[in-house]
Parts: sequence; C-alpha cells; structure tokens
Amino acid sequence: MHSITSPAGSLELYTDSSPNGFKATIALAELGLPYQLRHVRIEQGEHRLPAFLALNPHGRIPVLVDHDTGVTVFESAAILLYLAGKTGRLLPKAPAQRWAAITWLQFHAASMGPMLGQRVHFEIAEAGANAAATAHFRQLCGAALSSMDGRLANHAYLGGDAYSIADIASFGWLHIADLIGFKLDDWPHVGAWYARVAARPAVQLGITIPAPATGA
Amino acid sequence: MHSITSPAGSLELYTDSSPNGFKATIALAELGLPYQLRHVRIEQGEHRLPAFLALNPHGRIPVLVDHDTGVTVFESAAILLYLAGKTGRLLPKAPAQRWAAITWLQFHAASMGPMLGQRVHFEIAEAGANAAATAHFRQLCGAALSSMDGRLANHAYLGGDAYSIADIASFGWLHIADLIGFKLDDWPHVGAWYARVAARPAVQLGITIPAPATGA
Ligand SMILES: N[C@@H](CCC(=O)N[C@@H](CS)C(=O)NCC(=O)O)C(=O)O
Ligand SMILES: N[C@@H](CCC(=O)N[C@@H](CS)C(=O)NCC(=O)O)C(=O)O
Repeated sequence: MHSITSPAGSLELYTDSSPNGFKATIALAELGLPYQLRHVRIEQGEHRLPAFLALNPHGRIPVLVDHDTGVTVFESAAILLYLAGKTGRLLPKAPAQRWAAITWLQFHAASMGPMLGQRVHFEIAEAGANAAATAHFRQLCGAALSSMDGRLANHAYLGGDAYSIADIASFGWLHIADLIGFKLDDWPHVGAWYARVAARPAVQLGITIPAPATGA
Repeated sequence: MHSITSPAGSLELYTDSSPNGFKATIALAELGLPYQLRHVRIEQGEHRLPAFLALNPHGRIPVLVDHDTGVTVFESAAILLYLAGKTGRLLPKAPAQRWAAITWLQFHAASMGPMLGQRVHFEIAEAGANAAATAHFRQLCGAALSSMDGRLANHAYLGGDAYSIADIASFGWLHIADLIGFKLDDWPHVGAWYARVAARPAVQLGITIPAPATGA
C-alpha cells in the first residue's frame, strides 16, 4: 500500500481502480475534500495484508479513515453516507427527497451492485462456463436496471431533482459495467442519466483515481 | 394486501414473514412504535400488484410509509436507518461507534444478505442442482460469517458495546438461515451473539409478524 497524493487533510482513502472504489473517489472529488490516497493493489493481494485487514476484516476496498473524528468506515454505501453527513452535501434536506435518495442508495448497494458483481464473476471471470448461473445473474441485473429505468423515466436523478450519493453509487458500478460490455441499450432512461452523470467534471476525475484507470 | 393490526400511529409497514421483513418488525418492536401492518403475501404474488409496485417499483418487501413526514422507504437497511433517525435510538451517538454500526449494517446489507439470498436460491430453491454455483455461494457466505465472527470475538455487538440496527439486520437474515439448516457451528462468536440477540423480547415478537411465522 503506497501513498500517492498527500494534500493536507484528515482523510485517508484506501482504494483501487474498481467499481466500489470509484464511488468514494467521485464523492470526494464532488466535495472538493483533500485526502491521502492509499492505493491497495488487489491484483497483488495487498487487500489481504494484515495492515489492511485491521481496517476492514473482510478485505475489501474502499475504506475511509477520518483522523479528525477517529472514524474508520468500510462498505462504499457507508462511506458515501459518512461523507454526506460530514459535509451536509450530496443528500437533499427535505425528508421525502432525502429518504428517496437513501432508499435508492441502498437499492444500489443491496439489490444491484451485488448482482452486477456476481454477473461479472459468472459471465466474465468464468467466461460463461456455468450457463445457468450466467443467465440467472443476467436476469437479476436486467430486473434491477428495469426498476432503475422506471425511476429515471420521471426523475432526473435517483433521489428526485437533485444529484446525490445515490447517483454516485450507481454510476461507480455502471461505469465498469459499460467498460466490460454490459450494454444499457434496453434501459434508455438509465442511458440518458448515465450520460448526464458522466458529464460532471468530478465524475470524470473520480474514475481516473487511482491510475491506471483500467477498472481492474 | 390486508390490514391486520391497526393501533394508532402514522406508520404503515408492508411486509411478509421473511428475512428482510423481520428486520423491520424487530426494529419497530424494539422501539415500541405503533404501526399499521400490511401483509403482502409473496406466495400469492401480492408484491407484483400495481398498488404495491407504486410503493416499491422493484416489488420487494419490506416497505415503510410514514404519513407524518410523507416519507416512503424501501430496502430494509434504509428502513432501519430511517427508524433510527426518527427516534434517535438503536444507533450509538459517539461517532466512532455510530459509524462502526452503520458500517456493519451496510456489510450485512451488501456483503452478507445478498449472498445468503443467492445461497438459498441455488442450495434450497434449486436443491443444489447447480453444484458449482452452490459451492460458490456457500464459500461467499462462509467468508462473510468469518468476518462477522472476527468482529464479534472482541465486541458484544456489531457496532461495539451497544445493540444497534446492525444487529437487527444481521439477525433477521440469520434467523431464517438457522431455520433452513445453514448452521453457525463454525462461527462460535456469531453463535453466541445469535443467542444473545434471540433472547430479546422484541426480537421474539418481531419474528412472529406477520403470522404464520413460517419464514416463507
Ligand atoms: N459491498 C462492498 C463491496 C466491496 C468490494 O467488493 N470491493 C472490491 C473491489 S470493487 C474488492 O475489494 N475486491 C477484492 C476481493 O473481493 O477480494 C462495498 O460496497 O464497498
Ligand atoms: N435488499 C432488499 C431485499 C428485499 C427482498 O428481497 N425481499 C424479499 C423477501 S425477504 C422479497 O420481497 N421477495 C420477493 C421477490 O423476490 O420477488 C432489502 O434489504 O429490503
């Protein structure tokens, strides 16, 4: 694990160039918060080193440490909630919109992200060798995308009118889905939303950190 | 969808006797909040009726509606966060403990619950016919249980000293895992924690709602 950038600031982010990592780097870029980047090279097994397992015993990135508050957070959705709480930004204030955004954040975290992860496992890592499991996860991902598409048919962003951590979470994963060829053509509202979110400078920056931005 | 109990109160809970439903019924019992119970019979396809899809377009229980605030929340983790926010209870106040609890809530929601759900699909619903997928999800569930066991080796509850929504979320699912024969014997600290949580009267009540408590 190597430190790359070191602007002043109390935050340390342990991450790699990957779907869940991009959620954190995009949010930090949107918020303009300085942080020390710690590149955990999954390919080299650095997420299995004792020093990293002391931060997240499950051995996954991203992990955020806030030395100001003594808080360590893992799980990308928890990190996004933490950053929104710390800054009072990226979540609407009005209760109905706020909880819509948190609902769709959780929808991504529990109902979409894990299914995309398993689709990658069976369809890409195992090259579709298990045809039944490949079909099962394609179907589950399609169902999640359809629910998201219905939401975006009537709202510019997942929480409603305002861009929020729900969009950041969903974009982080769908960016990789796009790179590896999971097409969004059947879900036009998701596609239009994707273009809208991708146009944000902070999003363009977030997906390049840490370099090289292979998405590996 | 039928209304069963109707104590006074602004809350309506749409649920069935199931892992994610129990998270909401346990939390409401712990908090002593009155609510109107709406039994959505998944077996009879009631989660696919238009009236229910208007609340959660993804067609899953639980869903909570708060008529006081005009908030509708789905995804069990979002419901637990909402109830903790509404009452100021079931989450520690000190930042380090609070964010540890939210981290482990998200760990359950994203890294454990979906894997248990897929294990049920391949091992129970499909009776292990897909041996490779069955083994894959047994392995992922075991890894999640091992991470949880390590946490509980040094802490009475997932957030630390205090029982929180992280424990409620994890218990809701592991109760069903236990009923269907996913044993916890290899994870003694999870087993001891399970007994500790199961002994709570609100937990015993929550897992009977809605009746019949088949876990189906
Ligand atoms: N639910 C977790 C998932 C984290 C996760 O799976 N991270 C991946 C990179 S995107 C990882 O660390 N993989 C290493 C491994 O699985 O061993 C989150 O949202 O943060
Ligand atoms: N991630 C969701 C999962 C919700 C879920 O899968 N609920 C199940 C019952 S435990 C359901 O409604 N199943 C109906 C279906 O899958 O069609 C949550 O935590 O609330």
